[in-house]
Amino acid sequence: MSTACIILAAGMGSRMNSDLPKVLHQIAGAPMLAHAMHSALSLDPARLIVVAGHGAEAVTAAAEDVMPLTQVVLQREQNGTAHAVDQARDLLDGFQGDVIVLYGDTPFIRPETLAAMQTARARHDIVVLGFEARDPGRYGRLVMDGLSLDRIVEYKDASEEERKITLCNSGVICADAATLFDLIAKVGNDNAAAEYYLTDVIALARAAGLSAGAVTCDEAETMGINSRAQLADAEAAFQTRKRAEAMEDGVTLVAPETVFLAHDTVIGRDSVIEPNVFFGPEVTVESGARIRAFSHLEGCHVSRGGLIGPFARLRPGAELSEDVHIGNFVEVKQARVDRGAKINHLSYIGDAEVGEETNIGAGTITCNYDGVMKHRTRIGARAFIGSSTMLVAPVSVGDDAMTGSGSVITADVEPGALAIGRARQVSKPGMARKLMEILKLKKARLAKEAE
Amino acid sequence: MSTACIILAAGMGSRMNSDLPKVLHQIAGAPMLAHAMHSALSLDPARLIVVAGHGAEAVTAAAEDVMPLTQVVLQREQNGTAHAVDQARDLLDGFQGDVIVLYGDTPFIRPETLAAMQTARARHDIVVLGFEARDPGRYGRLVMDGLSLDRIVEYKDASEEERKITLCNSGVICADAATLFDLIAKVGNDNAAAEYYLTDVIALARAAGLSAGAVTCDEAETMGINSRAQLADAEAAFQTRKRAEAMEDGVTLVAPETVFLAHDTVIGRDSVIEPNVFFGPEVTVESGARIRAFSHLEGCHVSRGGLIGPFARLRPGAELSEDVHIGNFVEVKQARVDRGAKINHLSYIGDAEVGEETNIGAGTITCNYDGVMKHRTRIGARAFIGSSTMLVAPVSVGDDAMTGSGSVITADVEPGALAIGRARQVSKPGMARKLMEILKLKKARLAKEAE
Amino acid sequence: MSTACIILAAGMGSRMNSDLPKVLHQIAGAPMLAHAMHSALSLDPARLIVVAGHGAEAVTAAAEDVMPLTQVVLQREQNGTAHAVDQARDLLDGFQGDVIVLYGDTPFIRPETLAAMQTARARHDIVVLGFEARDPGRYGRLVMDGLSLDRIVEYKDASEEERKITLCNSGVICADAATLFDLIAKVGNDNAAAEYYLTDVIALARAAGLSAGAVTCDEAETMGINSRAQLADAEAAFQTRKRAEAMEDGVTLVAPETVFLAHDTVIGRDSVIEPNVFFGPEVTVESGARIRAFSHLEGCHVSRGGLIGPFARLRPGAELSEDVHIGNFVEVKQARVDRGAKINHLSYIGDAEVGEETNIGAGTITCNYDGVMKHRTRIGARAFIGSSTMLVAPVSVGDDAMTGSGSVITADVEPGALAIGRARQVSKPGMARKLMEILKLKKARLAKEAE
Repeated sequence: MSTACIILAAGMGSRMNSDLPKVLHQIAGAPMLAHAMHSALSLDPARLIVVAGHGAEAVTAAAEDVMPLTQVVLQREQNGTAHAVDQARDLLDGFQGDVIVLYGDTPFIRPETLAAMQTARARHDIVVLGFEARDPGRYGRLVMDGLSLDRIVEYKDASEEERKITLCNSGVICADAATLFDLIAKVGNDNAAAEYYLTDVIALARAAGLSAGAVTCDEAETMGINSRAQLADAEAAFQTRKRAEAMEDGVTLVAPETVFLAHDTVIGRDSVIEPNVFFGPEVTVESGARIRAFSHLEGCHVSRGGLIGPFARLRPGAELSEDVHIGNFVEVKQARVDRGAKINHLSYIGDAEVGEETNIGAGTITCNYDGVMKHRTRIGARAFIGSSTMLVAPVSVGDDAMTGSGSVITADVEPGALAIGRARQVSKPGMARKLMEILKLKKARLAKEAE
Repeated sequence: MSTACIILAAGMGSRMNSDLPKVLHQIAGAPMLAHAMHSALSLDPARLIVVAGHGAEAVTAAAEDVMPLTQVVLQREQNGTAHAVDQARDLLDGFQGDVIVLYGDTPFIRPETLAAMQTARARHDIVVLGFEARDPGRYGRLVMDGLSLDRIVEYKDASEEERKITLCNSGVICADAATLFDLIAKVGNDNAAAEYYLTDVIALARAAGLSAGAVTCDEAETMGINSRAQLADAEAAFQTRKRAEAMEDGVTLVAPETVFLAHDTVIGRDSVIEPNVFFGPEVTVESGARIRAFSHLEGCHVSRGGLIGPFARLRPGAELSEDVHIGNFVEVKQARVDRGAKINHLSYIGDAEVGEETNIGAGTITCNYDGVMKHRTRIGARAFIGSSTMLVAPVSVGDDAMTGSGSVITADVEPGALAIGRARQVSKPGMARKLMEILKLKKARLAKEAE
Repeated sequence: MSTACIILAAGMGSRMNSDLPKVLHQIAGAPMLAHAMHSALSLDPARLIVVAGHGAEAVTAAAEDVMPLTQVVLQREQNGTAHAVDQARDLLDGFQGDVIVLYGDTPFIRPETLAAMQTARARHDIVVLGFEARDPGRYGRLVMDGLSLDRIVEYKDASEEERKITLCNSGVICADAATLFDLIAKVGNDNAAAEYYLTDVIALARAAGLSAGAVTCDEAETMGINSRAQLADAEAAFQTRKRAEAMEDGVTLVAPETVFLAHDTVIGRDSVIEPNVFFGPEVTVESGARIRAFSHLEGCHVSRGGLIGPFARLRPGAELSEDVHIGNFVEVKQARVDRGAKINHLSYIGDAEVGEETNIGAGTITCNYDGVMKHRTRIGARAFIGSSTMLVAPVSVGDDAMTGSGSVITADVEPGALAIGRARQVSKPGMARKLMEILKLKKARLAKEAE
């Protein structure tokens, strides 16, 4: 049976104290909405609908970033969760199948959990996702009757006995589309906030003689985010999980709590990640690489035998082949670096190609920008780029060529040639001592004048 | 009624295992004495007196750093807390009002707590600050009689029953000046350490028919620091509180536990601070800025839309306008950088002005120091400074001007002009290959000789 | 009496999910085998034997790295711990004295603990190391009979009563060599895994009328490492201990949890280590130095008054005298830097000597590598190296000499001389504006062509 997912993402999130819509705040380098969408997409749903409200334009853009042409429907006024789901009614008119309602600010529901909800639908007309709460506090309680869900009772309406229940309501719900929208049409707003609550569909379903069931998941999956502190907690929870997975996969994290991984970071077995390494999105590291302390990687690939850092920055488009060394205070972006090449100190290599076994001297800069456009630098194999060489792109340096330290290279260098561009050294005996004396006298005079 | 604060800061702190006087060890970039003084100053006291002893000269300097002309009195021998307070007797001769005694190594008492002590003085002749201890251990216990403090009993003198009391003595005390000094005059030193204990004034007050009261505060406020481990704990407690405040104010801290804030750090709403950012004293960041990982800021201002790091260092006097970008391995100090300017790679900009929309190429250095004096560099708007330009100050580059990569600029550059200073590139065909062969032969010969 | 130590290091460690033999995974910059060996060597044993198996060649190399000529014996098949010890039988043929059996994956046994085992041998024929487990789980239990060890019972064979015992077996054992090998000869492999277990010698000893005893140690010492997560836990435990020791010794760690120490790091009293500092092996820091945030040190020495970082990297062979300043984005390796010298910004100083009070300008690079060999740079006292000076080694700069910014220095500079090598600045009025217009037109044309 086909499934439609509706993700509620209209809330303002006033406790975030932010101009940014709540669901666009990021976890592990991606908006929490993207996490929720990936969770939904794991079901390969026939339809995916995002209900936007506050900051709808930005929310739409973020949704399309995850999946082009995502259907986004606008909830103009925020009149409660049932009202929010109801905005998708027209879009799902005639849709045959189940609907699962998810939340943009509850980004960690696992695919297995959603699959279990689908399965449970074989036994119940409507299925709710619950969790065993360590501290049930003011959550709504799931009152079970054997394997069936009898009702959901809000904390404020719960009896002493019911408050002892620890199985709580996550808000995630699954039902046949027609059934769900029929029930939603009956939900009223006769409550303190005058809002239409999705939770009410359970009582309506039961009243209509339908059967309800519950699936439970780990409490961590239902972690909702309402403040910056909770956002930080969610990030920490994500990181803890992702770090454990990496270690399980045979990666050494010397100090796991200091390594920050993105949602899509891939690191091969027997790679070692030293303390204080930051992975932005779209990084792949092959087996047997070593990422040294204080390194920062985004959108790049490190191959087997790579030695990166400390203090290295790999930016998007850095593609490093086997056994490449990138050392301290080196930035690489949009550059292919071939096997065994070394860029060890204080360099900027951007929009470039660096050939096999080539050695880039300290302080080398590819001058890739002329103020208007970016240009490429091509360096061949086994070349030796002298320290502080300026490579004014577009320019190429051939295989086995050299450049002299401190040269500004504006014209192509032939393979095997030595290119050099620097002034002759002139020495003025005694001049340094004289200069120092003059400067000191001058300083003394200025100090005197200032009195 | 006016108030005088006395801060006891004479102790050696032998468990610190340090040559530095204990109260000068720092928390969040300021000596703990400064924290205690700021706490006292929150009352806007008529008088503030610091009692110094060990390292009195350095302690005096630190006190004056917080408030010029702070009165510092010397306690030549450390004969106990009552003796320490007694050193302020002459300075307060004739003073009409209350005295509050604070401690330089107990830096976290909140203004609200001190205000509550002042208020409680309306009901009692002498007021003690107590706290509910999670683990009362060997603290002195406050024995209450209804709302009045009956006595303070030291742990070693306490009965089984009294040891069950969890309300403990912080040592902070408030009383009318005349009363306090009268009581202190009666304190004896008939005890194992032969010291005069301030705590004894309570028993003396009660014996004299005076009433005593207690105000309670959170245990965290009374955290005393006696070792480096406790110093680290205090720093951690401070950071946890300050980070939570920042998040409450609408700042995203991706990994709060890796962000270090100074006592006076101000960050605007909707700014994002990535992992591993260090804020030294006197930093302000406006709303909507992003400080990327591994950045280090001190004494600087970042405006709205600023993008800083990763691996950026902003030093004192760095004043960045809106939308300024400071990238990796860049150091900025004593420099005004105007709206939209970019300094993205491997540069040192010191004692300088950089105009609007100007682009500073990688490897640019303001040569601000001639070995004796510092000089300024002025760069206009929309200028384009080529990579590895040396700007030998004093020097200026006009609006819309350019410099060629690798140029050493010693003379002013007119607006719209292109300044360039570099040798012509010369190419020697085949020379690189030849050179390599020679070097390899030489190496082989040296290796042979070494056998 | 002389002692022989046998360290079992043959295991594969399949839960590590690694090609590297388990005992070669590192803690605090040294293989766990090295930690175990140092523990054994604290007894000054007459003999030290490592039993290798998986990756025996690499294990042998690591063992010899700790102590040249360590005896390594090969266990070709892994048939249990008794079988492993039995591999050392021939090597210890005729050895008079005690044998202690240790484990390469249990690296934290303290010297005091091993000494206590030796002492306990005066009272018992065989001595086992036990520990009070917080959560005894499935550990083997030590069943004591007064001060004697009656037997070791495996969890699966233990009665309800025995499972309540919290004194557990670490596996470390000490006995007279002849006795131990006699007992081992009797161990059978009639068990599920068909392995020979060393633990069985206790029952055999007791059956033979020998007396057994137990020594207990802290559970943390017996921490065994079987997965990457446990490796990270062991690293964390080591770091926590080492940081606490440093603070005890009078070192300020502003944020201890962010400072990573190696097994042999030595830091003097009243030094301050800011957050996020990484110490690799062989670093010594004298008293009163300050290591600022984001610094990385390996194999180097920092003297009294040194000021290092932020963002400094000291590599092996960096030897800094008193009051040396190393600033941001500076790398120093194989270099002696004399008293009061300053290298504050964006420099690479390798294979060099820098004299007293010398100032190295920003962007200075010692060009120490010609593509084949490394050469040295010698800079005298009170020299002033202008920004972005390239020092092409071998080269020397005399006392009180200066170099002009942007110079490439290929020939020696006499004391007191000024050496300069740069092209004259030429200015082309209006050219920058013209160039920008041309570039913009070109870009527009390209954009149009691309349509």
